[in-house]
Amino acid sequence: MSKEKFVYFFGGGKTDGKADMREILGGKGANLAEMANMGIPGPPGFTITTNVCKIYYDNNKKYPDEVREQVKEQLEKLEQLQGKKLGDPSDPLLVSIRSGAADSMPGMMDTVLNLGLNDEAVEGLIKKTRNERFVWDAYRRFIQMFGDVAMGVHKEDFDKAFESVKKARGIKDDADMNVEDFKKVVKLFKEVYKKQVKKDFPQDPMVQLWAAIDAVFNSWNNDRAIKYRALNNIKGLLGTAVNVQAMVFGNYGETSGTGVCFSRDPSTGENYFYGEYLMNAQGEDVVAGIRTPQTLKFLEKQNPKIYAELVSYRDKLEKHFKNMQDIEFTIEQGILYILQTRNAKRTGPAAVRCAVEMVEEGLIDKETAIKRVTPEQLDQLLHPMIDPKLRKTLKPAAKGLNASPGAACGQVVFTADEAEKWVKDGKKVLLVRRETSPNDIGGMAVAQGILTSTGGMTSHAAVVARGMGTPCVAGCKDLVISGKAATIKDKKIKEGDFITIDGSTGEVFISKIELAKPKFDSRLTKFLSWADEISHNAVRKNAPKGFLVRTNADQPNDAKAAREFGAQGIGLCRTEHMFFDAGKLELFQEMIIANDIDARKAALKKLLPLQQKDFEGIFKSMDGLPVTIRLLDPPLHEFVPQSPEDIKAFAKKAGIAPDKLKAKIDSLHELNPMLGHRGCRLGITYPEIYDMQVEAIMKAACSQAKKKVKVCPEIMIPLIGTYQELKILKENAEKVVEAVFKTTKTEIPYLIGTMIEIPRACITADEIAPHADFYSFGTNDLTQMTFGYSRDDAGTFLPFYVETEVLEKDPFQAIDQTGVGVLMKMAVDKGKQIKPNLKLGICGEHGGEASSIEFCYRIGLDYVSCSPYRVPLARLAAAQAVLKNR
Amino acid sequence: MSKEKFVYFFGGGKTDGKADMREILGGKGANLAEMANMGIPGPPGFTITTNVCKIYYDNNKKYPDEVREQVKEQLEKLEQLQGKKLGDPSDPLLVSIRSGAADSMPGMMDTVLNLGLNDEAVEGLIKKTRNERFVWDAYRRFIQMFGDVAMGVHKEDFDKAFESVKKARGIKDDADMNVEDFKKVVKLFKEVYKKQVKKDFPQDPMVQLWAAIDAVFNSWNNDRAIKYRALNNIKGLLGTAVNVQAMVFGNYGETSGTGVCFSRDPSTGENYFYGEYLMNAQGEDVVAGIRTPQTLKFLEKQNPKIYAELVSYRDKLEKHFKNMQDIEFTIEQGILYILQTRNAKRTGPAAVRCAVEMVEEGLIDKETAIKRVTPEQLDQLLHPMIDPKLRKTLKPAAKGLNASPGAACGQVVFTADEAEKWVKDGKKVLLVRRETSPNDIGGMAVAQGILTSTGGMTSHAAVVARGMGTPCVAGCKDLVISGKAATIKDKKIKEGDFITIDGSTGEVFISKIELAKPKFDSRLTKFLSWADEISHNAVRKNAPKGFLVRTNADQPNDAKAAREFGAQGIGLCRTEHMFFDAGKLELFQEMIIANDIDARKAALKKLLPLQQKDFEGIFKSMDGLPVTIRLLDPPLHEFVPQSPEDIKAFAKKAGIAPDKLKAKIDSLHELNPMLGHRGCRLGITYPEIYDMQVEAIMKAACSQAKKKVKVCPEIMIPLIGTYQELKILKENAEKVVEAVFKTTKTEIPYLIGTMIEIPRACITADEIAPHADFYSFGTNDLTQMTFGYSRDDAGTFLPFYVETEVLEKDPFQAIDQTGVGVLMKMAVDKGKQIKPNLKLGICGEHGGEASSIEFCYRIGLDYVSCSPYRVPLARLAAAQAVLKNR
Repeated sequence: MSKEKFVYFFGGGKTDGKADMREILGGKGANLAEMANMGIPGPPGFTITTNVCKIYYDNNKKYPDEVREQVKEQLEKLEQLQGKKLGDPSDPLLVSIRSGAADSMPGMMDTVLNLGLNDEAVEGLIKKTRNERFVWDAYRRFIQMFGDVAMGVHKEDFDKAFESVKKARGIKDDADMNVEDFKKVVKLFKEVYKKQVKKDFPQDPMVQLWAAIDAVFNSWNNDRAIKYRALNNIKGLLGTAVNVQAMVFGNYGETSGTGVCFSRDPSTGENYFYGEYLMNAQGEDVVAGIRTPQTLKFLEKQNPKIYAELVSYRDKLEKHFKNMQDIEFTIEQGILYILQTRNAKRTGPAAVRCAVEMVEEGLIDKETAIKRVTPEQLDQLLHPMIDPKLRKTLKPAAKGLNASPGAACGQVVFTADEAEKWVKDGKKVLLVRRETSPNDIGGMAVAQGILTSTGGMTSHAAVVARGMGTPCVAGCKDLVISGKAATIKDKKIKEGDFITIDGSTGEVFISKIELAKPKFDSRLTKFLSWADEISHNAVRKNAPKGFLVRTNADQPNDAKAAREFGAQGIGLCRTEHMFFDAGKLELFQEMIIANDIDARKAALKKLLPLQQKDFEGIFKSMDGLPVTIRLLDPPLHEFVPQSPEDIKAFAKKAGIAPDKLKAKIDSLHELNPMLGHRGCRLGITYPEIYDMQVEAIMKAACSQAKKKVKVCPEIMIPLIGTYQELKILKENAEKVVEAVFKTTKTEIPYLIGTMIEIPRACITADEIAPHADFYSFGTNDLTQMTFGYSRDDAGTFLPFYVETEVLEKDPFQAIDQTGVGVLMKMAVDKGKQIKPNLKLGICGEHGGEASSIEFCYRIGLDYVSCSPYRVPLARLAAAQAVLKNR
Repeated sequence: MSKEKFVYFFGGGKTDGKADMREILGGKGANLAEMANMGIPGPPGFTITTNVCKIYYDNNKKYPDEVREQVKEQLEKLEQLQGKKLGDPSDPLLVSIRSGAADSMPGMMDTVLNLGLNDEAVEGLIKKTRNERFVWDAYRRFIQMFGDVAMGVHKEDFDKAFESVKKARGIKDDADMNVEDFKKVVKLFKEVYKKQVKKDFPQDPMVQLWAAIDAVFNSWNNDRAIKYRALNNIKGLLGTAVNVQAMVFGNYGETSGTGVCFSRDPSTGENYFYGEYLMNAQGEDVVAGIRTPQTLKFLEKQNPKIYAELVSYRDKLEKHFKNMQDIEFTIEQGILYILQTRNAKRTGPAAVRCAVEMVEEGLIDKETAIKRVTPEQLDQLLHPMIDPKLRKTLKPAAKGLNASPGAACGQVVFTADEAEKWVKDGKKVLLVRRETSPNDIGGMAVAQGILTSTGGMTSHAAVVARGMGTPCVAGCKDLVISGKAATIKDKKIKEGDFITIDGSTGEVFISKIELAKPKFDSRLTKFLSWADEISHNAVRKNAPKGFLVRTNADQPNDAKAAREFGAQGIGLCRTEHMFFDAGKLELFQEMIIANDIDARKAALKKLLPLQQKDFEGIFKSMDGLPVTIRLLDPPLHEFVPQSPEDIKAFAKKAGIAPDKLKAKIDSLHELNPMLGHRGCRLGITYPEIYDMQVEAIMKAACSQAKKKVKVCPEIMIPLIGTYQELKILKENAEKVVEAVFKTTKTEIPYLIGTMIEIPRACITADEIAPHADFYSFGTNDLTQMTFGYSRDDAGTFLPFYVETEVLEKDPFQAIDQTGVGVLMKMAVDKGKQIKPNLKLGICGEHGGEASSIEFCYRIGLDYVSCSPYRVPLARLAAAQAVLKNR
């Protein structure tokens, strides 16, 4: 066995490691080594490998002798390189001890700075720096950090001692403390240390060093770190590495300084060198905002040589890492050190711009560009937003569910009718309701945003708002509405007050806030065309070529918008949404209250041409693309008036006794309408309804086909639970289709399929497949039934479940792959086993969520369908799914 | 290849077949052969095998020559044996042609009688019988039957011709027709025949014979027969056999007669020779009831020789077939022929008595006895019933669902309150409601029976009625209730009217009917002990020894009753049912409306000793047997007042503002309570409720244990959908248990498990298993969620689904093995994979249904649990499941 290398040196032309050694050097160690290899000047040092961490734990927290030897060896190398020695009374070397695992775990493990200071070294450092106050301050900081991190001394006791010195001198601000004060603090800190550790503060730098190394390794398994790894699903690591690095100081004096810079603008993505710095300061001073930092422009003037050097490193680093860099630098006595570089965090617009421009610059390829932008970042581009800079100064009054993204601001109204009235008067309104119902559609359509106090991510308000692209915060528990007034905690809200909601975060602000508008520019168009290249050409074993994004759209204008957003067809057109128009609703109600089949048919006959016209509009706007149309799904009672006044008015218009009408409406009442007489159950018991709908669809399709529109209707039968239902309804539909072909003398291709949304349909998908041309997963209902959660009622416990981690995620937001996903996979497998060319898609809300899109890709669906405003996001997520599973 | 035998002779000492040749001779043919072998005198004949039927169809409806040859050969043998020839003008042989497949398909296929008659044979027969009228009548019957069955002549045309003769003579009754009339009929029939068949009626008996054989084979594939086989799941048969048998006539004259006898009394099972006969009559005269038949006692006097012979055959046949026989006999000119014997249909009481006595007589073994009684027959013994003889004269006014078995009669009341009032006044009432709710419990408990107009087999009324053993007809659609009056079709029902319901059939009668009381006698006790011997010793690969029956019981007296019925423990004790007692309900309501945790805890503290007392009663009555107690399951709104008056009254008593109380109650309202905030979701959000319940259970168990009662509590947590829920609640419960052990200084064994009733629980049963000691399938909810059916609302489409065969069976009555069953099996397999000794049971309503019990046995459950009054039936079904799957 050759001798294992436990300690890797970096800096000064003698670097042992490199970037691809993350696993044993950790992310930070590998990056430091890489920078050193590139000739970027950073403080030198060495990395103790992650394997030592493992050995440390395996070996009852002891190190093999070789580790101690190698550390000693490398430390000597470091001292030689720096020309300084640990603890040297004339010119001491100071080092930092930092953790760094292969996966980033920011802030979870421990760090010790300024190590190497002791009573003698302090004197040496003062000689070198001629800055007594800085040195004593550094010493007291070291004692405090070392005591806390390495020895477990209670931090509060240090704080108390520190405050006592300030109090004795009547000082409030640390900046007013002088050298004597800090000397006193050091004395007191040593006493605190001794009292708790039962030993003197160690003067031997080697004792300090090993205690700090121990501390970092120990912190690998502190509660915080364990929990972080569990939460972020970080598994299979050996442990953390330990980085020992020479300290440099930006506060050495007027020729020293420190700063942070970005290789491009992280807000906009624009390609110019952006950054801030402060002379004679420490890193935290730049961040803390006590002094106002200078821009790099100023550095260019003040110290063109240093600036030019920094620019050269920025160029080098960005080219090397092929990504926008966030670089920390320190100037110590006129010498520039790069302390750290990492990929920069950026806004959505910056992410897209940067990705596209880097491809154009030839820095990265298109696939890399696609991987660089998260779906959430993309989403920021598609909705109005509160300016992120302004945001920091605002405190939300309450938080609800981020039900439909984007920010909205308007005057509060409490009913849909009022919303329509106010908007007619030229006002912008925000509709505030306990929950919404189909009767509120008119008001919802004109509102800037919607805020509800109950209901979850798939409540009526949430679903409709997402469909309309209207921002919505749902289930805001702190909102209590009574009549035309509401309160949030103690704040009162009355009609006409301005409020602002952020549907991307769920935040609610009781004030008027200016919003930034979204833009769908040519850069984004280009970016998404690259995404489509990837997803449209995806090749999988278990599915035909390509993975597409369709949209859920019920109206021609929605369909048009979605097509502009890049939808490759309609995955779900809900016919019932068409009934809510004034003229149609009355006819549909007439049908519902009909006492016999003849009266029902008469009403349906009047409805037919109106539905046909709707479908014609949709087919026209989707010329050449498939359109999946779902037959009537909701229970009938959703369409009839409920309040005594409405019933009275309706009875009068319809010419029936109010009592009789009420009895009829009551008979439609259900205890659990979600599990009641709806979907295909209506189609079976009232076949004339589906017959009319199929006739309207096919007449519309044929009339458009005659006008040279390419129509691809896919008739979808909802809520199938047994193959018999589908068999009967398919046969009924085919009869109607044949009749339409005959009368119109036109034949067009069409499909008949079903929504898979009942658990039993998944289980018996092999029985159903012979009768279906396609399956489209209705994951909203499937999730409701698989979990036994009503999405309208789950607000009472589901948020609590997510908060307390009973559930990892809200299953109405992301597909529950462990439960619902198993049923979906079963349905896919059983369906394909019988019919290998079965067309498969998803039209539940999950079709617009990234992790769900990836799951759909993995199990072999042909497409996902989502609301128009989610289409761009879904296109990106689809491409990423393809890349991730290649 | 040796020559295949296509035709088998029987009778006259030359019988070719025997009883175990059902497959090729059919049931009837095999039985005729067996009787002949036994020396029982029957008319001889021959059977054409089922294989000929197959060949006939495979061969484009042609017979191989060998078949024709063999038929000819056997026919000659028959003619020789009888000393008569087909079509002989002096003494013709007449034969019947009958179908007979391996499985009985009564009335589905065709029969031709009196074959061999033609214009000449008529004369011969008249010579022999000296009964001209009988012969001409026989001839016209033959033409009609042959024409209809073999040649497809419209029956109505024969009927018309027949009526025209009667009309011309002014006759109303067939009995008044004379020889001339029948001659005219024959003439007209021949004309009808010729007109439709375009040929003369065939005079050649061989032509008649082959046409009749064709007709029987063709009838194997008529629509009726195909549908019958599909419905009864009869598969894999070759076809039907054809039996050609010499005719004998009980109406040859005064020394002829015909009768039906049973080897025991089919009503009571008593072991005496029971039967009826008529001299000079045909079989149908005995059945038709025009003449009153004589009892066998009279035959004994009238013709002791024939009687003695008949007795000897009865003894022989019963001993041979080891079952109660239903025997048809004919006396032709003083000679006794046994035409047919088969196992007798019998009532429930007769089935049990007969089975038990035959074991005692050494005729059959216990296992055979167990197989002989159907669960439905057993059920008849356990409920009051309408006398079956009386039943025939009654016509039900309407039919609903047979929701809880047994008949009940009482005066109609329309509210639960009225029910209680009337019963206090000493009256017997029948509660008639649209549907029932927990508020109706008081009235339901005192009613003789319950009738509802809506709701299915697992509606509240049905479930509670079954639990109480109260007869119930649910979802009677023709019943329309308005206020204190109702109508069924056009009949009015007012308060106080008598009605009778039969909960075993769903029938409703608008009259007072006397009922027969059930009796649980020592014979039944013995019979069921044999069932237990089988099921308690069942050995399966996938489960521990034994398959038990527990009961669902919420009160000590129910538990006691169930134990007397043979329950081996409680499988489901619903704690919430205990809250409906007046004192407890108020405390529970106080808990629900509490505004904070302290107020909630205070109310629960008061409730604790009351629940503890309930549990003590249950443990005491189940001494030595396990008791599974389910923690609170229903949503809280079920417990609070709903009507404005009730809210007002409650607010006053509780000392809160009615507005506030209403707001609180409204906040509990859910759109789909079935999928809402209930079950373990309450346990997670209000842990103090479950803590109280667990404390009450364990304190009760420990206090009973101290009194030497053997307690085996099994705490069941309902509605688990994720393992995290169970993990949290189990840990909570264990803490409470430990505390109780400490304070009571007692330790007892106990289990904590979960109900599996959410589809996701089945799918993730492997994740849940580590946290559960047992799984109990809640198949009511599992069925609701797997199908997406609300049992409260499914009344609008489910009956229609069952009627039109969209569903084979109501899945709330029998487990849907294709859908729900797959999830159950998945849960069993995944659960056992992680925990091989996981205890498994079922406590849904299906636990009392025979096919479901068998399914549970097959997938490896340890026990089923059902309502107390179903326990005996379940014990039988459990034993039968074991025998069937051995």
